[in-house]
Amino acid sequence: MIRIGIIGYGNLGRGVECAIKQNADTELAAVFTRRDPQTVKVMTPGVPVVSVADVADWKDKIDVMIICGGSATDLPKQTPEYAKLFNVVDSFDTHARIPEHFANVDAAAKAAGKVALISCGWDPGMFSLNRLYANCILPDGKDYTFWGKGVSQGHSDAIRRVPGVKNGKQYTVPVEAALEAVRAGKDPELTTREKHTRECFVVLEEGADAAAVEQAIKTMPNYFADYDTTVHFISEEELARDHAGIPHGGFVIRTGKTGWNGENRHVIEYSLKLDSNPEFTSSVIVAYARAIARLSSEGVSGCKTVFDIAPAYLSPLSGDEIRAHLL
Amino acid sequence: MIRIGIIGYGNLGRGVECAIKQNADTELAAVFTRRDPQTVKVMTPGVPVVSVADVADWKDKIDVMIICGGSATDLPKQTPEYAKLFNVVDSFDTHARIPEHFANVDAAAKAAGKVALISCGWDPGMFSLNRLYANCILPDGKDYTFWGKGVSQGHSDAIRRVPGVKNGKQYTVPVEAALEAVRAGKDPELTTREKHTRECFVVLEEGADAAAVEQAIKTMPNYFADYDTTVHFISEEELARDHAGIPHGGFVIRTGKTGWNGENRHVIEYSLKLDSNPEFTSSVIVAYARAIARLSSEGVSGCKTVFDIAPAYLSPLSGDEIRAHLL
Repeated sequence: MIRIGIIGYGNLGRGVECAIKQNADTELAAVFTRRDPQTVKVMTPGVPVVSVADVADWKDKIDVMIICGGSATDLPKQTPEYAKLFNVVDSFDTHARIPEHFANVDAAAKAAGKVALISCGWDPGMFSLNRLYANCILPDGKDYTFWGKGVSQGHSDAIRRVPGVKNGKQYTVPVEAALEAVRAGKDPELTTREKHTRECFVVLEEGADAAAVEQAIKTMPNYFADYDTTVHFISEEELARDHAGIPHGGFVIRTGKTGWNGENRHVIEYSLKLDSNPEFTSSVIVAYARAIARLSSEGVSGCKTVFDIAPAYLSPLSGDEIRAHLL
Repeated sequence: MIRIGIIGYGNLGRGVECAIKQNADTELAAVFTRRDPQTVKVMTPGVPVVSVADVADWKDKIDVMIICGGSATDLPKQTPEYAKLFNVVDSFDTHARIPEHFANVDAAAKAAGKVALISCGWDPGMFSLNRLYANCILPDGKDYTFWGKGVSQGHSDAIRRVPGVKNGKQYTVPVEAALEAVRAGKDPELTTREKHTRECFVVLEEGADAAAVEQAIKTMPNYFADYDTTVHFISEEELARDHAGIPHGGFVIRTGKTGWNGENRHVIEYSLKLDSNPEFTSSVIVAYARAIARLSSEGVSGCKTVFDIAPAYLSPLSGDEIRAHLL
């Protein structure tokens, strides 16, 4: 059994707990929290909730620690810190800061003889893998990534900061015509506006000016100004009834040419359609936790990404079994 | 530079030659043939065509040998034989015989201190990888593979063996309604007939009985009897004009559930749309040849499959570069 710990019990931490239940060779050893452990109730019977202050006591009782903090401020500190004590996996997703995060985690993990995997999930994660494979197969080609339809947490937060907004949710929607042009091998150069639209569902505060709110959202720099944005005003009840989920997904497409004179065209497409973004991310993480436990048992140390892990390490099946049934 | 040799100069061998041209860190060292080398003309200037009888002379001049023989009779003999002299890659695609082929190649490669990669391409190959990743991420789920629209060489050959048929080509076509049911998460149980249709373009011999030919094709066991098959009679000119290509492709889909009670559904889909089946297969093979050359330089030996190769090994870029640009 692979003994897994969870640090941080939000949507992602709960998703990891669910994924552990689905994988017969993994077990949840403990959940660590910054809150008062008494106030945190986990779903798995008999699993202790422990203050993160006591995490060092679990050094020899956990094979892989999954760190479910946020990328903005938590993970840059947490992952290098906990890599001194545990094999760790995180889902660090600030693309621009990955090289720096990798270097910090690598130094800590190597010094401690631990293995760390950063930026695990679907983007970064499975989407990155598909970009890499497709680039290696079709060196003469062009990459496209589309996201959605799905909830963007950052954009939903931005809506909720607009004066007069009581609550809100934002969906990122890929533009079907752009997707079709890419799939048809037209190699389009797409602007931000041409790739995605943004759809907002907003609950107004009592007496708020709907037109002013809509204008404030649509012209917000970085978040909405560069997109065609639709704003729907709905009631708190409608928001709760129709928009409680956290769906997401997207498309990674590479088109490219082969042949002596580039005469043949090819399209490689990978897509995800997810009812629950955090649960899918967690499911990827737990599969990789298995790989990290194995690498550690082989004496490997240092920081890894999904690029560095041979696919067979993710599977509970033997090499013979995967060759016989999946090749 | 990675020095690559090609054994067998048919569609696949020519595709490998084209792929080598697209990859700046690879070069074609020589092409080996069972034919009279004088009769074989390759596209790359200055590359020798050598009798396969003299292949041992090239032992120290080739980093990876790509064996472009057929799976039925060539590869089961060739790959273990050449793995005694070279690091090798093949595209062995007889799924049922992979375990036996793996064992034979593994023994030969280990004894010689060489690395071999078998069953490389897209199915087996990229489709297998996607089945593995998706199975590891969604343990509670269901797999679907659809092929096409594309030319099946085996079925085209079967048509051409029917009395009265001068020439012919067969396309395997996935049933759109079945694909949609799978994507919609309906978990359908699909019969052979419900997954694919078969479309045949047939040139009759002078005076042949079209109705008898159509009947013979549609009722042919294994090849056509279990499918809804359409037969179109066309002229030799139309066949040459409209059906000269070797397109193919397909879809690997896994649907699955997550959540404490399986309450959330997910769809992972990988698809290929290929103008040239052999050139795409060759492009996958050359990316993996790079990986095999690297593994060999690290002292690895034995037989591998795509499951055993960490994705980063396929890329000409450094770890820093792929983390910065593709993660």
